[in-house]
Amino acid sequence: MKSKVSRLRHKIKRLETLINTSMVFSGILDIDELLDTVMQKAEEVMDAEASSVFRIDERRKDLYFITARGEKGKEAKEIRVPMGKGIVGWVAKHGKPLLVPDVRKDRRWFRGVDEKTKWVTRSIVAVPLIVKGKVIGVAEVLNKKRGRHFDKGDLELFAALGNQIAIAVENASLYSDLDNLFLSSIRAIVEAVDAKDPYTRGHSGRVVEYALMIGHAVTRSKEKLKEIEISSILHDVGKIGIPDRILGKPGRLTRREERYMERHPEFSAAIIEPIEMLKKLTANILHHHERLDGDGYPSGLRGKEIPFVARIICVADAFDAMTTDRPYRRRRSRKAAFQELKRHSGTQFDARLVNILIREIKKQQLA
Amino acid sequence: MKSKVSRLRHKIKRLETLINTSMVFSGILDIDELLDTVMQKAEEVMDAEASSVFRIDERRKDLYFITARGEKGKEAKEIRVPMGKGIVGWVAKHGKPLLVPDVRKDRRWFRGVDEKTKWVTRSIVAVPLIVKGKVIGVAEVLNKKRGRHFDKGDLELFAALGNQIAIAVENASLYSDLDNLFLSSIRAIVEAVDAKDPYTRGHSGRVVEYALMIGHAVTRSKEKLKEIEISSILHDVGKIGIPDRILGKPGRLTRREERYMERHPEFSAAIIEPIEMLKKLTANILHHHERLDGDGYPSGLRGKEIPFVARIICVADAFDAMTTDRPYRRRRSRKAAFQELKRHSGTQFDARLVNILIREIKKQQLA
Repeated sequence: MKSKVSRLRHKIKRLETLINTSMVFSGILDIDELLDTVMQKAEEVMDAEASSVFRIDERRKDLYFITARGEKGKEAKEIRVPMGKGIVGWVAKHGKPLLVPDVRKDRRWFRGVDEKTKWVTRSIVAVPLIVKGKVIGVAEVLNKKRGRHFDKGDLELFAALGNQIAIAVENASLYSDLDNLFLSSIRAIVEAVDAKDPYTRGHSGRVVEYALMIGHAVTRSKEKLKEIEISSILHDVGKIGIPDRILGKPGRLTRREERYMERHPEFSAAIIEPIEMLKKLTANILHHHERLDGDGYPSGLRGKEIPFVARIICVADAFDAMTTDRPYRRRRSRKAAFQELKRHSGTQFDARLVNILIREIKKQQLA
Repeated sequence: MKSKVSRLRHKIKRLETLINTSMVFSGILDIDELLDTVMQKAEEVMDAEASSVFRIDERRKDLYFITARGEKGKEAKEIRVPMGKGIVGWVAKHGKPLLVPDVRKDRRWFRGVDEKTKWVTRSIVAVPLIVKGKVIGVAEVLNKKRGRHFDKGDLELFAALGNQIAIAVENASLYSDLDNLFLSSIRAIVEAVDAKDPYTRGHSGRVVEYALMIGHAVTRSKEKLKEIEISSILHDVGKIGIPDRILGKPGRLTRREERYMERHPEFSAAIIEPIEMLKKLTANILHHHERLDGDGYPSGLRGKEIPFVARIICVADAFDAMTTDRPYRRRRSRKAAFQELKRHSGTQFDARLVNILIREIKKQQLA
């Protein structure tokens, strides 16, 4: 009787852990961070040495790692598992959880991954990730710690956990799909605006690329990087409001036309401003043509008065303008553009950001 | 000893229910559907007669119902609860769960809602909804069935459920924020394109409105309605590619200019096509100027060959064009536009959709 009570108590403890675990992770929408947290918790609850999550590639009819934790995780991540092959492939194909107390005694066991990674698998619990009746992937834990083997209780617990993982993965995917939709739609429309002037075709896309090169060097904050990306993709959207005869003029603009052209940051800002969630990016866009010495437009801001992201876009924008053809001049070489950026560092451009962009582009050329 | 085991078994059963419940609901990103499912399950698990979820309005410093289930749910939904007032206000203010076995014996109890709704509350369990350390709302269940009162076990269970609800609400909010961002950004840019020609200012927004009037009358599928909304907001985005001298020409277009103008659905489709998630809307946009009799453009499709959503946009688009000024004519009255739409039903427009739009607009005028 005593042991029955203690067994039930143990079960309650594990169920409670499970509930607390699911609370921790279902609130995270970043899929990498999410899965790492999930599987770390899973290893804790399951007392496992390593764990992996696979996603099914419907087109290629195989599975690829989206998370591989443990000593040999990095090596494992390169490998793809055919549908139906090995334990993971079996679980994906049949959509059923599987307990393998000792892999050497299971004929479904496939040595391939261990051979490639020099890892020794002893025991596996693998569960299908099912969303709305469809298998989208597989989660597994490997090797119960202290030389033990997984048992039926482990299978039951991990199956419940698998349901949570499936939902979390699906939520994160839905979110990331929508995020991609947002960015790619904005981008497609902005590209159409850029393409009105053959000389600026592809400009905004390249400015995003350069701005993110600088961004990755100065911050690891995903939120900040997103801010840089969205601000730079939208910096010239206001060109929608510039008449064709100015935008596409074959030759230098008159002073009057130039003054009109210089209103494009205001037009861009005016488009963004009413969008509640983008309001905070307005200043990044409005001020991307300011100069450190105060001689820029539209507001004549100086130095640190200019928002940081606006200073990034300014350097990225100028570099792309220099290295592409214009009606009145051929494009400069990258080397010449670097010199030009340096010459105007401290007066027009933020010297630190110029140096970072040059360094990052050189790094990329070497790669 | 027997009773201890059966108590533990009972607890396990409830924990398992809780885990299964959380699996059902954390996968739903539609907040209304989600909360209704969540609270229905909560009532089941808690054996409760009714339930509510409140969200905190930070600006107004009060709480409003986002879900109110039970007999008097509809009446309750109008009411706002000041922070700190009543059981719910107390839980929101202190961020702590609260068990009230008998409301008549609790001095925090506030009769106001019962008086307004003619509902009799006996017993309450209320828990704060906390995300990343911040109270975002309160969930409560009311009146344990069969005249019983809630107890400590109920409080414990509902507190765990509250954590799940909080995360689900937060996920759904994040998703719906991003969805709003997507739509409002597209809309802001398209409005800037419309505004290039003063005669079409606000056009796309109105076409969305008319198209959705038809949409709501023909389907309840949220997915289909979303398809109608996105397709109609983007139907004229290709006007970015039409030169100003044609787009803003004060007067009738020459045949040659008209032919260029008629390419705008192709331009719109070309912008949308590369966007993976919008690819399936391309046909809706490409064919919004087809005619049932095959005399439309760009493909001369006939009748049912024209995608359903394209036929909707066609009617909505024509109605807005008729009822707004053009350089070469004043706008028609709604009545005259209705006659015009009817006259061309069956040849240019889908008669059923014309009738629906007319009916819906008349309904709205009466309201």
